[in-house]
Amino acid sequence: MRYKIDVAYKGTNFHGWQIQPNAITVQGELDKAISVFLRIPTETLGSGRTDAGVHARQQIVHFDFEKEIDTKRFLLGVNSILPNDIAVKTIEKVADDFHARFHATERAYRYYIHRYKNPFGEKQCYVFPKELNIDKMNEAAQCLFDHIDFESFSKIHTDVHTFNCTIMAAEWVQTKEGYVFYIKANRFLRGMVRAIVGTLLKVGLEKMNKEEFNDVILAKNRQKAGASAPADGLFLEEVKYP
Amino acid sequence: MRYKIDVAYKGTNFHGWQIQPNAITVQGELDKAISVFLRIPTETLGSGRTDAGVHARQQIVHFDFEKEIDTKRFLLGVNSILPNDIAVKTIEKVADDFHARFHATERAYRYYIHRYKNPFGEKQCYVFPKELNIDKMNEAAQCLFDHIDFESFSKIHTDVHTFNCTIMAAEWVQTKEGYVFYIKANRFLRGMVRAIVGTLLKVGLEKMNKEEFNDVILAKNRQKAGASAPADGLFLEEVKYP
Repeated sequence: MRYKIDVAYKGTNFHGWQIQPNAITVQGELDKAISVFLRIPTETLGSGRTDAGVHARQQIVHFDFEKEIDTKRFLLGVNSILPNDIAVKTIEKVADDFHARFHATERAYRYYIHRYKNPFGEKQCYVFPKELNIDKMNEAAQCLFDHIDFESFSKIHTDVHTFNCTIMAAEWVQTKEGYVFYIKANRFLRGMVRAIVGTLLKVGLEKMNKEEFNDVILAKNRQKAGASAPADGLFLEEVKYP
Repeated sequence: MRYKIDVAYKGTNFHGWQIQPNAITVQGELDKAISVFLRIPTETLGSGRTDAGVHARQQIVHFDFEKEIDTKRFLLGVNSILPNDIAVKTIEKVADDFHARFHATERAYRYYIHRYKNPFGEKQCYVFPKELNIDKMNEAAQCLFDHIDFESFSKIHTDVHTFNCTIMAAEWVQTKEGYVFYIKANRFLRGMVRAIVGTLLKVGLEKMNKEEFNDVILAKNRQKAGASAPADGLFLEEVKYP
């Protein structure tokens, strides 16, 4: 039987989502906790990787187990085995062929910028004290809808076959604390959101205009884009299935 | 010259606001940072004490300094000396007789309850998994407006001359994560918000009714009220002056 779970984590203390030898990862901790609870070695598969330091409010994960699982006992048990910075929020039985990665049709991220020191969410926002021109950032972000190939915003040496992504939302909003960027697409390339945010920050500082931002995308060359924004501010917010 | 500053802090790692020998306190750290920055021993005075583990989004504080202070340099300098969990948000010059404690006319607190494990705000909410009857809690909270003496919700052995407080707001709201209680008064007694929340939780669990809650207040006896809710969930949100 296949089960789908909804996991939230603060990424600060992990070497990213993906399990690795000799490093503490979210997937590694999750596999361990579920294996202990179910008393059988269990491997999970997530909707996608998040890098070291990146957080998730909703990461969707599947795994197989041969018997019925008592939902309430599973959540209590697994959450008490997991460290404080990982929580399983829900579990449900799904079709045998459900696939957390291949069947996901929408992924949404938010990037949080605070203008001032934030005592409450250390490592959960990027503290960037300079004022940003949010109108110019939003105008430039509109260019994202005109393209499908985002090689310029992808880490090199990745194993993907295509750099094509369909952008579904891309918007900056001003908040009491600073700025938040919301972006939704069918899929994202490695490092893509942080590279887009880093490049849009140049636009917000008026060191790059909308046309130059568009040229960065056309170049299909990571060297043309801005530096990656720090992992701290990035949250995987939602993953959707048909 | 007298200066007024607006300070935020995560209380988890401090033995409360009030300076003490041999304990790390928010006021102690603040006095130290300001004294280092201004190069003269400086003592601050806050709008009120918060207990160990209690947070503040806005604590108002005053101190005296004989010269003009450059606002921007002060904020940058003092914030870089302070630990990560204390931030000075604003500074302004005020009248010589301004008093952060005596002149404050309104104090507002929020108490945050999450129903599930929260990986993002560890020690910044009270995780209480049981369902609460929010309508009954709100009905009982209305009783607070009918009284002025709140000795039943005060720590004993305090040095106050009166237990009288004027309640200006008291309301529970349901959130995505759980429940939040908002309470505003001209002043609060020591441990008062946590004692009120702890007692209203009994109402929410339907172990106490509105009339019994009212009787608790009338008793003027701390023994009659419920246990204090943990400090983790409590935030001093706002302090107001005429």
